[in-house]
Amino acid sequence: MSETRTETRARYPHFLTISTRWMDNDIYGHVNNVVYYSYFDTVINGYLIDPGGLDIHGGPVIGVCAESACRYRAGFAFPESVEAGLRVQHLGRSSVRYEIGLFKAGAEAAAAEGHFVHVFVDRKSMSPVPIPEATRAALERIRSAA
Amino acid sequence: MSETRTETRARYPHFLTISTRWMDNDIYGHVNNVVYYSYFDTVINGYLIDPGGLDIHGGPVIGVCAESACRYRAGFAFPESVEAGLRVQHLGRSSVRYEIGLFKAGAEAAAAEGHFVHVFVDRKSMSPVPIPEATRAALERIRSAA
Amino acid sequence: MSETRTETRARYPHFLTISTRWMDNDIYGHVNNVVYYSYFDTVINGYLIDPGGLDIHGGPVIGVCAESACRYRAGFAFPESVEAGLRVQHLGRSSVRYEIGLFKAGAEAAAAEGHFVHVFVDRKSMSPVPIPEATRAALERIRSAA
Amino acid sequence: MSETRTETRARYPHFLTISTRWMDNDIYGHVNNVVYYSYFDTVINGYLIDPGGLDIHGGPVIGVCAESACRYRAGFAFPESVEAGLRVQHLGRSSVRYEIGLFKAGAEAAAAEGHFVHVFVDRKSMSPVPIPEATRAALERIRSAA
Repeated sequence: MSETRTETRARYPHFLTISTRWMDNDIYGHVNNVVYYSYFDTVINGYLIDPGGLDIHGGPVIGVCAESACRYRAGFAFPESVEAGLRVQHLGRSSVRYEIGLFKAGAEAAAAEGHFVHVFVDRKSMSPVPIPEATRAALERIRSAA
Repeated sequence: MSETRTETRARYPHFLTISTRWMDNDIYGHVNNVVYYSYFDTVINGYLIDPGGLDIHGGPVIGVCAESACRYRAGFAFPESVEAGLRVQHLGRSSVRYEIGLFKAGAEAAAAEGHFVHVFVDRKSMSPVPIPEATRAALERIRSAA
Repeated sequence: MSETRTETRARYPHFLTISTRWMDNDIYGHVNNVVYYSYFDTVINGYLIDPGGLDIHGGPVIGVCAESACRYRAGFAFPESVEAGLRVQHLGRSSVRYEIGLFKAGAEAAAAEGHFVHVFVDRKSMSPVPIPEATRAALERIRSAA
Repeated sequence: MSETRTETRARYPHFLTISTRWMDNDIYGHVNNVVYYSYFDTVINGYLIDPGGLDIHGGPVIGVCAESACRYRAGFAFPESVEAGLRVQHLGRSSVRYEIGLFKAGAEAAAAEGHFVHVFVDRKSMSPVPIPEATRAALERIRSAA
């Protein structure tokens, strides 16, 4: 997450459009800051499931959030949609750091940008495990250039 | 809301597709029952705004929920989408009763169905007022046959 | 859920105090109608876990919502707390119908009241099963007089 | 937010206890990462309202979130409560940076810690304005030692 530069659309290889909901708007009339993280969560886990092949209902490996952050530049308001961009900034043995940009329809500059770290763990022991192969292959495909 | 019959798609004149979110899934792996009402809220208020012309940010009239209900027949799970159908069952001077059906993609029978009553009130006094003309005209267009 | 009478505090044998959250308030400045159901959900499942002994993480039986409804009489707004009253209106072999009242601090009359039906099912097959004994015993204790 | 040290309870001058909700638990059985930010939001805005005197319904000044972040160390699960600690790390003319720690009941080490930046703006123009005096005085009282 750069301190000085707003992120642009071309820097995200994967996009998902997410509908806002009436209750996303808070008392001040814009989408509440908390809800942005549900957009992060949604684009990330959607990608892990398809094409990443993660079985969230019964698979042996799950992703646990270790860290997240967001910088807010412009507000969304229901009923507009959110275009969520995703890239992988770092891919480790059992962890991955994603970078996410949220865009208004057609906008070049991100309305919000952030990062999110997943650690993959065994569902029962909660100990870190290697990222499953199919998931890793999908994550490789949206890795940002160094 | 019929006790005995599942609602079908053809009985709803207006539809909105709503994306589910990762956090909609509860500990049992399906969209939590509470979240269904956020889908109701979203299809209704979306329609009130466009085409209904309701100005949610500064308009003098707002819609307040007086009653809602839902019957659950089948579960949704992230990442599937929800197709929310809407009709007006009763249109009074200052209140409206909507009926909503939530459908899986392509399904004929509703996965859930419910109703929702809005009372339109003055934003400041919170006293009931007549439904604004443009909003009423839009609601008339999705009124169910008697 | 009576059409004509507001529920009073004395009619609920079990109470749980729930804190509101900043984001519960919607654009109109009061707790969004959807969120009331999360209070219902919370007082019910809290009671099922303790004293009801339901193991939500790994137990063989889970509760699935079949129906819910709410009538709204007065608004809540963050930062006030909600006092959620619970009683059992009907206790069947594998299902239970709860009635819930939400109260402002110290108020006699409910700000909202509703009902909620749980069907207990096998976690894997999702087929109805008898309510576990310990849970049933706890539910019996908050059954309303006929 | 320190990279290397877990925060402890004594470093937060203000605390609020927040009840978890059934739907906070996600499919993996713990409170979803997004929801932690609603706890941040709640302890912060609760403090701004009382003792900070902010009128969220009609006051001329509102707080807008510019940045937030969280580091997750241990999970919460419904029905446990969250003890949210708050301090002010930086107090500017129109902005404030809070640091938040979330604790399990009785625990010394934070289960999660993060920061949150508010910019105070004019409700209509959305331009930054000085923090109102009463609010500033309250924020001064929970400022961390340099």
